[in-house]
Amino acid sequence: MTFDDFHAIIPAGGSGTRLWPLSRRDRPKFLLDLSGSGRTLLQQTWDRLERLVGPDRIHVVTGAAHADAVREQLPALRHIVVEPTPRDSMPAIGLAAALIETRHRGAVIGSFAADHLITDDAAFGRAVAEAVTVARTGLVCTIGITPSGPSTAFGYIEAGRPLGLPDAPGAVAVTRFVEKPDAATAAGYVAHGGFRWNAGMFVATASTLLDHLARLRPALHQGLLALAANGPSPDPARWDELEKIAIDHAIAEPVAAAGGIAMVPGEFDWFDVGDIAALAQLRDERDGGSRDGVLLHDADGLVIDSPGRSVTVLGIHDVVVIDTGDAILVTTLDHAQQVKELPAAWAAHGRPDLT
Amino acid sequence: MTFDDFHAIIPAGGSGTRLWPLSRRDRPKFLLDLSGSGRTLLQQTWDRLERLVGPDRIHVVTGAAHADAVREQLPALRHIVVEPTPRDSMPAIGLAAALIETRHRGAVIGSFAADHLITDDAAFGRAVAEAVTVARTGLVCTIGITPSGPSTAFGYIEAGRPLGLPDAPGAVAVTRFVEKPDAATAAGYVAHGGFRWNAGMFVATASTLLDHLARLRPALHQGLLALAANGPSPDPARWDELEKIAIDHAIAEPVAAAGGIAMVPGEFDWFDVGDIAALAQLRDERDGGSRDGVLLHDADGLVIDSPGRSVTVLGIHDVVVIDTGDAILVTTLDHAQQVKELPAAWAAHGRPDLT
Repeated sequence: MTFDDFHAIIPAGGSGTRLWPLSRRDRPKFLLDLSGSGRTLLQQTWDRLERLVGPDRIHVVTGAAHADAVREQLPALRHIVVEPTPRDSMPAIGLAAALIETRHRGAVIGSFAADHLITDDAAFGRAVAEAVTVARTGLVCTIGITPSGPSTAFGYIEAGRPLGLPDAPGAVAVTRFVEKPDAATAAGYVAHGGFRWNAGMFVATASTLLDHLARLRPALHQGLLALAANGPSPDPARWDELEKIAIDHAIAEPVAAAGGIAMVPGEFDWFDVGDIAALAQLRDERDGGSRDGVLLHDADGLVIDSPGRSVTVLGIHDVVVIDTGDAILVTTLDHAQQVKELPAAWAAHGRPDLT
Repeated sequence: MTFDDFHAIIPAGGSGTRLWPLSRRDRPKFLLDLSGSGRTLLQQTWDRLERLVGPDRIHVVTGAAHADAVREQLPALRHIVVEPTPRDSMPAIGLAAALIETRHRGAVIGSFAADHLITDDAAFGRAVAEAVTVARTGLVCTIGITPSGPSTAFGYIEAGRPLGLPDAPGAVAVTRFVEKPDAATAAGYVAHGGFRWNAGMFVATASTLLDHLARLRPALHQGLLALAANGPSPDPARWDELEKIAIDHAIAEPVAAAGGIAMVPGEFDWFDVGDIAALAQLRDERDGGSRDGVLLHDADGLVIDSPGRSVTVLGIHDVVVIDTGDAILVTTLDHAQQVKELPAAWAAHGRPDLT
């Protein structure tokens, strides 16, 4: 099969306050090299998609405050859509879809978050190919991640009957999308086996997506078409009139209820570095050992040190020490959910520069 | 009364590993401004004694590695005795005593540690005056600190019968010196009322001290007299032949047993910044609040920050964060006694530069 009609959209947004002080207002999560690979999350997402479709068929949608940084990190980027203000994922993806449809009638689009980690590019490519095949039938197709455990950090997608498509043997109908569950519910989903994680990957023809939008959110659809006619830099005043809504609520949930969503399995590793606990898991620093510049003495946890400085932890387990040069955060892994309160707390203490 | 015959000795030694990373091999505790007053502990000790006796009658005894720093901190210093290697307090004080006796026959000397905090100079002066009066009678006189609680961090001194000296009404005989007690014993001492803290302050005529030494440690006495004849820079080889012993063991304990030690009360505030728990008490940062550059969010403890950087603590109580620019220590107050293990641990990890 060929990907010639397939265009990738990378919505690069989100503040990532749960990873403060690594992530800041002007340096959000997707601009960071959290895996220590030498490439930022955005760059890794680009690399993965660029291998599938080349640089000409990738659109990055990002906020005005981050456009320069995105251009700097992706010198081969040719299509950038700049959001004057954040209005959640539906306007971002919808505008990119409208722009692509204008120039490439009949195109298939796929949306992939800028801040997720995937290392098995081949398996990712196979899943996208299968999703594109499904999308060409007029369905919206998501890629469901095989759960590695009963996580409460992600939404789940319930699988329905197999679609029986010869070129997409793994494709099933989606019964419903469910929000982040509690621990017992998550355990039930994983035990049941018919649920996959929602990684926010949606593949559809641009016209399918826009048709759903025209039916479900006509004002938003009208607004997006009008803006798209003027190119990838929307007028701020008109942009701000658009409804602020996520694609999950605008399309995925209602269309699933009407039987219009399919799912193919994502049999690749997938990691959402959602908070410091996820980062600790990614970095796997919990061995209690020491390395150059870091001494864990009767201690273990996650330590991110700064060049030219040493960090010593004595007697605290599951510690988190993040030193970014200007800011040092000290906490423990079980406070991962509270980290997001800290930028606001600093702002309240008269230090918005630290947020 | 007059202090004309009184000379102060400041032994400036000790590594202070329990205050690492504030204190280092080349920057021991007495060279630090731990109270945030703008003056180091050594400078504050100098200021206190210089007001009593002037700059001409103060001897500072310090290690060769710290002599330059001592001279830099005390530009008015005229008498510095440089120890080639550390041999504990008796050789240090004994050499200074012998040097003073050579030039000022009949002088009274008093030894005061370089790293203790006292803010009530007037009360300190009154206690020293009383001790000097007692010393002129041929006794070795210590100044016993009124305990503010049943501390297990200090040795205690048991008071005996009052001496009945008209010019030193508070003076009593010393029954015995006791080492740092356990908590129950310390509580008993404080309840009893007849015990005071041993702050290592000894006042005696130089000849009394040297006579005790001649009787109790004749080889050490001979060695010190020989070295003193050559001035304040002892020959390293001959210095290293001296017995390594504290004045408490060499003189205070045996002479007390023989009835030769007196004590006057020290009715002034006195603080030995022995470890990070004591430092926290001194800094009184445990209010759980925040200040410029420090945010304690559901947290309290001791935070010492570095210029131009911020420290945020989330969800850890009794935390200790010390940022010295090159080193960050993270621990909790109940690990105060283990901090002294850290310089050796860093050395074992190939980083002696951090010790």
